[in-house]
Amino acid sequence: MFGEWFAERMITAQADKARLFRSLHSTARPLALANAWDVASARVIEAAGAPAIATTSAGVAWSVGAADGDMLSREEALGLIARIVDAVAVPVTADIEGGYGQDPAAVAETVTAVIEAGAVGINIEDGTRPPAELAARLVAARRAGEQAGADVFLNARVDTFLFGLGDPETRLQDTFERARTYVEAGADGIFVPGVTDPATVTALAAEISVPLNLMAGPGAPTVDELGALGAARVSLGSGVAQAAYAAARRAARDLYGTGSYQVLDDALAFPEINGLFATA
Amino acid sequence: MFGEWFAERMITAQADKARLFRSLHSTARPLALANAWDVASARVIEAAGAPAIATTSAGVAWSVGAADGDMLSREEALGLIARIVDAVAVPVTADIEGGYGQDPAAVAETVTAVIEAGAVGINIEDGTRPPAELAARLVAARRAGEQAGADVFLNARVDTFLFGLGDPETRLQDTFERARTYVEAGADGIFVPGVTDPATVTALAAEISVPLNLMAGPGAPTVDELGALGAARVSLGSGVAQAAYAAARRAARDLYGTGSYQVLDDALAFPEINGLFATA
Repeated sequence: MFGEWFAERMITAQADKARLFRSLHSTARPLALANAWDVASARVIEAAGAPAIATTSAGVAWSVGAADGDMLSREEALGLIARIVDAVAVPVTADIEGGYGQDPAAVAETVTAVIEAGAVGINIEDGTRPPAELAARLVAARRAGEQAGADVFLNARVDTFLFGLGDPETRLQDTFERARTYVEAGADGIFVPGVTDPATVTALAAEISVPLNLMAGPGAPTVDELGALGAARVSLGSGVAQAAYAAARRAARDLYGTGSYQVLDDALAFPEINGLFATA
Repeated sequence: MFGEWFAERMITAQADKARLFRSLHSTARPLALANAWDVASARVIEAAGAPAIATTSAGVAWSVGAADGDMLSREEALGLIARIVDAVAVPVTADIEGGYGQDPAAVAETVTAVIEAGAVGINIEDGTRPPAELAARLVAARRAGEQAGADVFLNARVDTFLFGLGDPETRLQDTFERARTYVEAGADGIFVPGVTDPATVTALAAEISVPLNLMAGPGAPTVDELGALGAARVSLGSGVAQAAYAAARRAARDLYGTGSYQVLDDALAFPEINGLFATA
């Protein structure tokens, strides 16, 4: 009895968060995501005002000692997602790289596990795989969501610009085509990292029928400016993790250079960060 | 055959690193430790010139979503230690809080696991436990090291100053007594966090017969200055983690405030951090 009641409550919570998450995609005020790589970063980012938490697979891989790129196991990735969902009140979307598996069936298993972990969305990327392969994975992901009775926001990443794939002359057209293929396969959003110049953003937004997600960083237009150009979602990728580990490097260089600790002046106070977590 | 050869090589590697680690304790040039909390921070800190890596249990706890203080499981703590040992070339010492267990036998199991993970030392703390309890744990830890045929540097943490325990009038004397008790029980070093003022440091160094470890941070004398006062080891505790998560907060506040990304100007470049990790 309790088990059923609990399972039902979990499903309701996921559904509420999924609805909220979907509604946050808007060009008027784009959904801004400062991607987290562990539970502490997720709580710190939530406490700073984030309406949702997205993970960065590169940051997660680094934190456990691996390079970026499908080197993390599904268990490891999903264990972290479950912990983040437990730790924050806002919706969580999971970067699942290529989907953690060799075929669509494996991707469906991953998506089922993502839903069980309580997340409301995924990022899944094509990388150097043929577009038809990501399309098949999206179909499997969509079906897995339906079978679980859960709303999952499928954000399909197109890596043409990020990886400089194909002929530069036709890259924009290739991107349009991939986006169309992925939307037809069930993508709720299209993520085109590596693009922030106004002309290309405007062209992408005009052509893509679902919310457009961009990755921003130093030198990019602000979130609102990207919204005005047509983006509905702006994320920082592994940038926040890179900034955090840079602070660690500065502290270590101070220590091994001058034997001093000035960098720690800017640290979060112990009670402040410790207070973000539940005690026994 | 291969198994034996491999086991022997592992033991030799641990012994070499343990000898090196022990030799780094020196008042002439104190062992400076910028404590790590995950594999990425350990690699970043090593690449910045660290001669050894120490973990911070508070930082580790935060990264997996728990508050500081014996809330981490032994498995979780040791899984991370093994990963850090695998990822870095320098000796690793593990902060094992109270020892992860209710009695000395459990602490012995923890120390055996620490050795199996390839670490060369532990930090173990008294906290609010009676000094006799940490003494018994140190005896068990020493015996576990002997039984494994491994050299383990036992750094005993005295929490009188950090937690403001007992009568302030007799705190220094209490600390002396605890240090004596722990050294008699087998401690190789005494760690007194919460003290960096020259008079107290000088008094502690004069009284304590083994390497003295202090925790430093903003406002504290430099590493060399603490060495001149008698410290042989200076660590940053959870300070580096606090600085790293502060960078994450700044990035998130920028994003949710002005929708900008200036903080990321100071980030490690993607290839730079990604290059610290092995690829498949």
